[in-house]
Amino acid sequence: MAMAGGMTQAQSATFTHHGGRIDHAKRQYPDALQPWIDLSTGINPVAWAPSAPLTVDRASLPARDTLAALEAAAADYFDVARDRVAAVPGSEIALRLLPALGLGGPVRAVTPCYGTHVDIASETIRPDRLGAMDGTLLVANPNNPDGRLIAAETLLGLASDQARNGGWLVVDEAFADAIPGASVLPESRGADRLIVLRSFGKFFGLAGLRLGFVVAPPVVLARLRALLGDWPVSAEAIVWGTVAYRDDAWIAATRERIVRDARALDALLERHGMAASGACPLFRLAQVEDAPALFDRLARAGILVRPFADHPHWLRFGLPGTAEAWDRLEAALAQ
Amino acid sequence: MAMAGGMTQAQSATFTHHGGRIDHAKRQYPDALQPWIDLSTGINPVAWAPSAPLTVDRASLPARDTLAALEAAAADYFDVARDRVAAVPGSEIALRLLPALGLGGPVRAVTPCYGTHVDIASETIRPDRLGAMDGTLLVANPNNPDGRLIAAETLLGLASDQARNGGWLVVDEAFADAIPGASVLPESRGADRLIVLRSFGKFFGLAGLRLGFVVAPPVVLARLRALLGDWPVSAEAIVWGTVAYRDDAWIAATRERIVRDARALDALLERHGMAASGACPLFRLAQVEDAPALFDRLARAGILVRPFADHPHWLRFGLPGTAEAWDRLEAALAQ
Repeated sequence: MAMAGGMTQAQSATFTHHGGRIDHAKRQYPDALQPWIDLSTGINPVAWAPSAPLTVDRASLPARDTLAALEAAAADYFDVARDRVAAVPGSEIALRLLPALGLGGPVRAVTPCYGTHVDIASETIRPDRLGAMDGTLLVANPNNPDGRLIAAETLLGLASDQARNGGWLVVDEAFADAIPGASVLPESRGADRLIVLRSFGKFFGLAGLRLGFVVAPPVVLARLRALLGDWPVSAEAIVWGTVAYRDDAWIAATRERIVRDARALDALLERHGMAASGACPLFRLAQVEDAPALFDRLARAGILVRPFADHPHWLRFGLPGTAEAWDRLEAALAQ
Repeated sequence: MAMAGGMTQAQSATFTHHGGRIDHAKRQYPDALQPWIDLSTGINPVAWAPSAPLTVDRASLPARDTLAALEAAAADYFDVARDRVAAVPGSEIALRLLPALGLGGPVRAVTPCYGTHVDIASETIRPDRLGAMDGTLLVANPNNPDGRLIAAETLLGLASDQARNGGWLVVDEAFADAIPGASVLPESRGADRLIVLRSFGKFFGLAGLRLGFVVAPPVVLARLRALLGDWPVSAEAIVWGTVAYRDDAWIAATRERIVRDARALDALLERHGMAASGACPLFRLAQVEDAPALFDRLARAGILVRPFADHPHWLRFGLPGTAEAWDRLEAALAQ
């Protein structure tokens, strides 16, 4: 079996915890084709870049005014009131701090879900049991890894039910940017038991900046800010984020390109006998007969995709970012 | 009274919460001499810079190997074992997460102290009551704002007492870099109830990067990492921090320069009737007859210093970073 040579059970665990472990892949597959192509995350491979070099003051503590300008730009982009947005050093940290926000009751995550959702939840529930309950209900929309998309109005109804129950609804919209109408935020005024997490780095292709946002009622933001302090994100994240969120032309063009590329990826996978599912164009979840074997074959070709420990028939593919990457993926699957 | 024109009680609160509020100073003193000189923090004004441009991959999630390399460089610089060091996005966040680390018992901060110590403590104690007690004892060394320095061996003794008590000692060494022998870390092997916080941005003059470290037993680091996740700091912080901590020549020269500049600042303050106190060369705490009036006079001259709400005779001065800044400070005090 091909896998035995390249990926033991223990080694595979390194790749099934998170995407993006190119460093580990290089050690496991030293003879892989170079350079590595990382399709193991859902990060846009064509990053936003400033049209002229941006001035970043690394020397000073980031000024409060500049942080406010970033949060205002993000709020305008999300289409919510500015007093409901707080910047965080990555939406990963926001997720992990959820249980420390004093919301009360257990956190329940809807499966299948992103690993960190499981890490912080006291319980997981199946999607067919999704409904109002006490405590905090945590759902990603679109969902990672299966791309399940719940209509914004359904989630807003659930948020109302949670409010009546004294509970909370947390919607992780880390991957929502590329899907018009997916976000609950534009219609969320008055939803006082709703918390939404947003990621900057995925859609803008700048995960190394570590920037995300929590959109929540001011009372929750006050608790969050008490945990993070007055300088939650770097000067670079502030400057880059502020300009990027105002770049309407890039945002519109990128949404179109990502959707187009996702269709092309679906067609490519289909040519090689795989059906892709889900509504998230930043990644495609493919049904594969023997995922460990295909993971191994692709890795030998210098292409890292995302396997799942409990799902031997799933591989998640991010979008290739260059013509060469598309060609290499096609060639590796054709072997 | 000069203050009435420039700084009301409410306005002054903006400057007494934290240093670094140049944005607010510009609004309060629109006619101040330009450019503003920020002496309101204890950040080294002569920042570390790479000798050749550093390559930072903003697009990808920071790889675990690069984070490990940063933590190793920091551990070597701190002179501690590598498995005791975790990077955080600023020591401010580390402080604020202390109560979430499940150490048990109350947090007690030793006064006078940095504002965030008060924010997270359930109680403050006077320095003459410093001794073993239950829960977590939080002390800055050197202390901010008064520069009080406690001998490392005294603190190590206290850490042992705390361990016997079932308590913890947290030493905030945000300003320790410029004082040889100040850190408890080189002699701290076996101190299993000791947590030390370090700041990268202050000594290296790069506060905008948002980088700090927690040095603690592995069990505490595991809890901290569970709150922060796998990508706690930005790609830029990782690359810059790793190279800077290995720049022995710059570190040695900077220690000398900072100590020399602190002596020069003491002499300058003395020429104008102020006595500076404390052992921290990154800032000097001056006894001033009428601190609000002098704050106001300096602000009109475009120089921001640090007043303290409860101490009308204190002003804290950071080090000027250029010949022009030294001259302007001297001139403003001579008026």
